[in-house]
Amino acid sequence: MTTPSAQTDRPDRGHIIISVDAMGGDLGPEVVIEGMVKSAVRNRAIAFIVHGDEAQIAPLVARRSELAGRCEIRHAPAAVSMTDKPSQAVRNGDDTSMWSALESVRSGEATVAVSCGNTGALMLLSMVRLRKLPGVNRPAIAVLWPSRNPGGHNLMLDAGADIRAEADDLVQYAAMGAAYARDGLHLSRPRVGLLNVGVEDHKGRAELKAAHEKIAAAAETGDFEFVGFVEGGDITSDRLDVVVTDGFTGNVALKTAEGVAGLIRELMRESFSKTPLSRLAALFALPALKRLQKRVDPRRVNGGVFLGLNGTVIKSHGSADATGVSAAIKLAFKLAESGFQTRLAALLASAQASGQDAGADRNSDGGQE
Amino acid sequence: MTTPSAQTDRPDRGHIIISVDAMGGDLGPEVVIEGMVKSAVRNRAIAFIVHGDEAQIAPLVARRSELAGRCEIRHAPAAVSMTDKPSQAVRNGDDTSMWSALESVRSGEATVAVSCGNTGALMLLSMVRLRKLPGVNRPAIAVLWPSRNPGGHNLMLDAGADIRAEADDLVQYAAMGAAYARDGLHLSRPRVGLLNVGVEDHKGRAELKAAHEKIAAAAETGDFEFVGFVEGGDITSDRLDVVVTDGFTGNVALKTAEGVAGLIRELMRESFSKTPLSRLAALFALPALKRLQKRVDPRRVNGGVFLGLNGTVIKSHGSADATGVSAAIKLAFKLAESGFQTRLAALLASAQASGQDAGADRNSDGGQE
Repeated sequence: MTTPSAQTDRPDRGHIIISVDAMGGDLGPEVVIEGMVKSAVRNRAIAFIVHGDEAQIAPLVARRSELAGRCEIRHAPAAVSMTDKPSQAVRNGDDTSMWSALESVRSGEATVAVSCGNTGALMLLSMVRLRKLPGVNRPAIAVLWPSRNPGGHNLMLDAGADIRAEADDLVQYAAMGAAYARDGLHLSRPRVGLLNVGVEDHKGRAELKAAHEKIAAAAETGDFEFVGFVEGGDITSDRLDVVVTDGFTGNVALKTAEGVAGLIRELMRESFSKTPLSRLAALFALPALKRLQKRVDPRRVNGGVFLGLNGTVIKSHGSADATGVSAAIKLAFKLAESGFQTRLAALLASAQASGQDAGADRNSDGGQE
Repeated sequence: MTTPSAQTDRPDRGHIIISVDAMGGDLGPEVVIEGMVKSAVRNRAIAFIVHGDEAQIAPLVARRSELAGRCEIRHAPAAVSMTDKPSQAVRNGDDTSMWSALESVRSGEATVAVSCGNTGALMLLSMVRLRKLPGVNRPAIAVLWPSRNPGGHNLMLDAGADIRAEADDLVQYAAMGAAYARDGLHLSRPRVGLLNVGVEDHKGRAELKAAHEKIAAAAETGDFEFVGFVEGGDITSDRLDVVVTDGFTGNVALKTAEGVAGLIRELMRESFSKTPLSRLAALFALPALKRLQKRVDPRRVNGGVFLGLNGTVIKSHGSADATGVSAAIKLAFKLAESGFQTRLAALLASAQASGQDAGADRNSDGGQE
């Protein structure tokens, strides 16, 4: 279990406290601490409880005056590795930094936890330790995508928490995604679309048709606009703000998008280094290319948010550098500050109640659509 | 039904004849004829039977001396529209250019048909008129993707012929995709991957685990290498040549990729037009940007190939311009010339036989993996 640190550097009550797992990222605790420093410098209201091997972490934290008085260390001797099976982490992981980071959320010391570790382990551990919100069957991972919208991003869920999703799960994803878009993207009435292979009502699998009807019925309670079925090309569009899909499809779409963006980046580099003239052109084009890069930089949208648990957990990319970690922390702060978790729980409770009403209606009148 | 044309401009026997549906594309028969001209100029061995409204088509063809003696017109008074339901096209479509174009393949006059029309209608009509190859349960649409491979492309199927696929369908997709990669991409032993949410053997849905085992067993007969489970990011990689997935996932992945590429293109344009300096830089960068554009130009990989039917059908993008139509025709020629259809039929027959053997083995020894 977690051993309370001897360090008395406890953040004061005026701060919003983020629980950070310092271990388990590909680049080690140095970049995690560096990411915390970046966030601490920009945001004076933020403070941390950081979890991991104290012998490694304490010197890193001590070196950075920016963290003074705003970072408590919790010693955890072990770390979940990228190759550990999720079930292992649950059975034998109570001395790990990941476990300890979630414990701070469980106890209420922090509202949001951030980890760069093993996704599967983090999800299963979150489900076991934090437990699902009442009425939630399948928690989901929500991720941000660069898009044509004025804010620059859309939201997609589930990005891979569960490879299955029934119609009722998809309805919850819609409600949870809309709640996140309200607090995380500051959209008063998010537009939600259901991912399918065509926009016509008759297309797609049976559970999608059922979900279509149910999400349409849930839109008012959930305070979002349902735009109906959407296609893969709409994920980056300005037709919608939130894309709902099962974790298998969402995971494939996300990784495909990353692959395509990576290929284009690589081909662009090749193209600009092909001839002396194009190398010169690259120098001229640098500001424009940097502007583009900044706009689609995955580090700036780093952080898959686990939704549907008693507490918010943010999964940062395993290979995230300090900029990436800082982006995940910024997101954590935003969600913590807005009271997202409390509102989400209330919303799901009311959606559940209204879903039961709708179910009763349907039984009496034989369906609404 | 098709009305034989009065025109005596019948292509001679030395040519490879492609059946082209001139109607149903978003840009009208002009661009289809223009695409045929482009192909005819580059390739002296190609000839056409073109289907559609003779009053519109005949003047277009007559104007182009490049098509003289190499293009027969078949009058079809009607055309399938983009909004027609597939079942409508089957019930009432026997006077359409799409129907007529398939009829030329059915009768053996042409080996491959090309159409820019309604995908769903073209697939259903192809299944009804050409019928499925023996042993094929679900035909598939195979599409090319820009990739890091030396040849510049990978193949993915099913891109959306059917939203469902059982393990046995996925095994056939693997065999059909490998056959196409051999004849269309000139790869002697294509590497085939099965799309999943992780590369570990234990991950994914039940039908994927079953398909994993069966594809591994079918690799030798199919003369391909099975690289196992792959992820969305691998579709554009050089780890593999052929990606196998169900038509729902494949369709979402394809449209997502198009959406991402389109967004990057748009953001790049914005970025290069933002300041006077960046507009100047764009001039310098133009050759490099054109090189990039050419490499990822969807028009150059235009053509979803319907596999698993008695005859090959190529679906060109509805919005294809002359370059796009010409790319689809080039692909049609390549597949016709290589005797692809005959070899595919033979391969599926032998795979079916060996699959039955393997089934018998499995019954006697309780599974091979």
